[in-house]
Amino acid sequence: MKTGFFKVKTREEVWDEFERFTPLPTEEIPLGQALNRVLAEPIIAKEDLPSFTRSIVDGYAVRAQDTFGASESLPSLLEIVGEVGMGETVSFELGGGKVARIPTGGMLPAGADSVVMVEYTEELDQKSVAISRSVAPLENVIRPGDDFSVGQEVLQAGKRLRPQEIGLLAGLGQKKIIVRRRPKVAIISTGDEIVPIEKEPRPGELRDINSHSLAAMVESSGGVPLKLGLSPDQFPALREKCQEALDRADICLISGGSSVGSRDLTLDVLASFEGSEVLVHGVAISPGKPTLLVNTGGKGFWGLPGHVASAMVVFQVLVRPFMDYLRGLKLSLGERRPVRARLNRNVASKQGREDFIRVRIKEEEAGELIAEPIFGESALISTLVRAHGLVRIDRHTEGLYAGEMVHVITI
Amino acid sequence: MKTGFFKVKTREEVWDEFERFTPLPTEEIPLGQALNRVLAEPIIAKEDLPSFTRSIVDGYAVRAQDTFGASESLPSLLEIVGEVGMGETVSFELGGGKVARIPTGGMLPAGADSVVMVEYTEELDQKSVAISRSVAPLENVIRPGDDFSVGQEVLQAGKRLRPQEIGLLAGLGQKKIIVRRRPKVAIISTGDEIVPIEKEPRPGELRDINSHSLAAMVESSGGVPLKLGLSPDQFPALREKCQEALDRADICLISGGSSVGSRDLTLDVLASFEGSEVLVHGVAISPGKPTLLVNTGGKGFWGLPGHVASAMVVFQVLVRPFMDYLRGLKLSLGERRPVRARLNRNVASKQGREDFIRVRIKEEEAGELIAEPIFGESALISTLVRAHGLVRIDRHTEGLYAGEMVHVITI
Repeated sequence: MKTGFFKVKTREEVWDEFERFTPLPTEEIPLGQALNRVLAEPIIAKEDLPSFTRSIVDGYAVRAQDTFGASESLPSLLEIVGEVGMGETVSFELGGGKVARIPTGGMLPAGADSVVMVEYTEELDQKSVAISRSVAPLENVIRPGDDFSVGQEVLQAGKRLRPQEIGLLAGLGQKKIIVRRRPKVAIISTGDEIVPIEKEPRPGELRDINSHSLAAMVESSGGVPLKLGLSPDQFPALREKCQEALDRADICLISGGSSVGSRDLTLDVLASFEGSEVLVHGVAISPGKPTLLVNTGGKGFWGLPGHVASAMVVFQVLVRPFMDYLRGLKLSLGERRPVRARLNRNVASKQGREDFIRVRIKEEEAGELIAEPIFGESALISTLVRAHGLVRIDRHTEGLYAGEMVHVITI
Repeated sequence: MKTGFFKVKTREEVWDEFERFTPLPTEEIPLGQALNRVLAEPIIAKEDLPSFTRSIVDGYAVRAQDTFGASESLPSLLEIVGEVGMGETVSFELGGGKVARIPTGGMLPAGADSVVMVEYTEELDQKSVAISRSVAPLENVIRPGDDFSVGQEVLQAGKRLRPQEIGLLAGLGQKKIIVRRRPKVAIISTGDEIVPIEKEPRPGELRDINSHSLAAMVESSGGVPLKLGLSPDQFPALREKCQEALDRADICLISGGSSVGSRDLTLDVLASFEGSEVLVHGVAISPGKPTLLVNTGGKGFWGLPGHVASAMVVFQVLVRPFMDYLRGLKLSLGERRPVRARLNRNVASKQGREDFIRVRIKEEEAGELIAEPIFGESALISTLVRAHGLVRIDRHTEGLYAGEMVHVITI
């Protein structure tokens, strides 16, 4: 294994290492399974949407010029020559002074260029209607391509599919789509003090929290968690689990090892796989400094801190972006859902590292959102249960002051 | 069917009608399936978490008083009497002047009350260590109950389970939990102009968007979508679909019927089920005015507008809260993830109704978020594809001015 000389990396430097990995292969899936998946290829409209001129109101299809000057006191009197049925291809054409009844969504007859709402009309008999308000050409209609035009790139590769994108793909008749495969993420908990949740812990032992909280984070980040269970802090046992992860998964998370000996063991085990390369050995963030990233046969093996809150913060700021990279995701600002809030207490921080503090969001009387820091050991899960999000403190500042506006990354 | 005289209801009045329905029954599920489910019963800690005093650093367990006054120039010299192994129940007890090696997460021996970090120590030989910094009692340890204490209500009924709550439940040894059943939501699209997405639409026809976008919204709101497909605008066909929904689902969404005749048909069909009661017939919101809610045998049947953007807005502001009510969800502010942004254009609105405008979120140079309104017909799906969220305009105002701070409901 190449290890070389290691210095602690910044978060951005860790992200830069992602490019050494290859995004996951693509697969074709039916539209019904597409929610939150990431497009691997752009979607080009093969036809106009809508494909014909439609009315967006109930009323009368007209030539706009026939209504010019119409008013309640001096209505235009026009001849009804037909009725458009829903879903029907209209075969007749409107001449001057003629109209046709049309429902919302109905197809405009040739010759018509607008629709008068039924509220501004009165049928005098089966054959004639009085129009009491003029319309402009194109009023109350949508035209071919108003949504999307043929040949247009309607969705880019890298787009996460929300319900509205799924609706769009349905509208374009896209029954199947090409997305990147969901990352399979193996999860291993280490630590001789950790027992499975089924077991009653003796004094000195703790139940395995990380396997379960990390599996849920993997799931909510679009991955497939594979819980490989616990490994004692022994070389052969941990290596066997890692081999299983290498065989079955795209990513492996090894949590635990918060003591020095345990961290060294994780590194030794990963080093024993041929061609593995240590990319990250320590990150300038808090919590989360003792984080490892090893490229093991093209797969990303992460050593996460054992403390529950540290492991979740590292997942949020490093592993989730890594999964996003493998999924081919390109997130726009609005999708990252940042929350702006006003910090209500001073928070100190050490220069040279990024701090991620846990906060609870509250609403002040004026409707402004405030972010209240939650202090507490990162070994405590209660700090995260109370938290709504994380606030980042830049590595070049010594902290944040009460009253500052901050971005909250919701968790 | 009771129909009575109907007036358009406000959004809050619609929400008040939810109480006529009974939240869904409960079920027991394994913890591994609990992500985003809603607790039906509070969780009471059956034991302290952690259950013993642990070290949060690598170092030496000590009695704090033995370190008082220690400094680099005048270290305390203490005797090493043992070593704590990870996961071991410690049997020995520390007397005065004695210490024990302890790893992060290790159990404190009786007699010890704090831990000195290894950085401030130097082992002189196997039996003695020099301590160059004093610690206070309880420094570098967490005690039983620091996370949660026995008997404490750690999670309330109505809580949606995020990864951190799942971690907490694992830590408490909660292998199974009682949650409310996920709502099964039948989805029917009506409209004679609508064809399945597999079919090539003729002029005058459109592919069925709503079945697919609404199913995705149901899924992302914690429900199970049942796509029942298309119904022509005819009484027997629509009634048969509604009967199937009544047999199989907890909620039914009927979209389409944007023309008056189609809306009347939906109402007639729902009226034909014995004991059904119209609760809502028109809502003072835009888009979404022609919304129906009928209590059909204890199940909520919603008539949604046919226009794609209207249907999605009504889902977001009415149907999703209805699903939340049936799931027993109690959302805190932080979980609603509101985004504060500054509006960058004037938006007019009619008094007497709530307007929900679609917005795109951008970031200004100063880091402030701005909300840019997206105007366009609600029949166009492109307006939602470009949007990141909705901004509500109160029914008592005539609009919003550029420069105002607004809450964005992300969609």
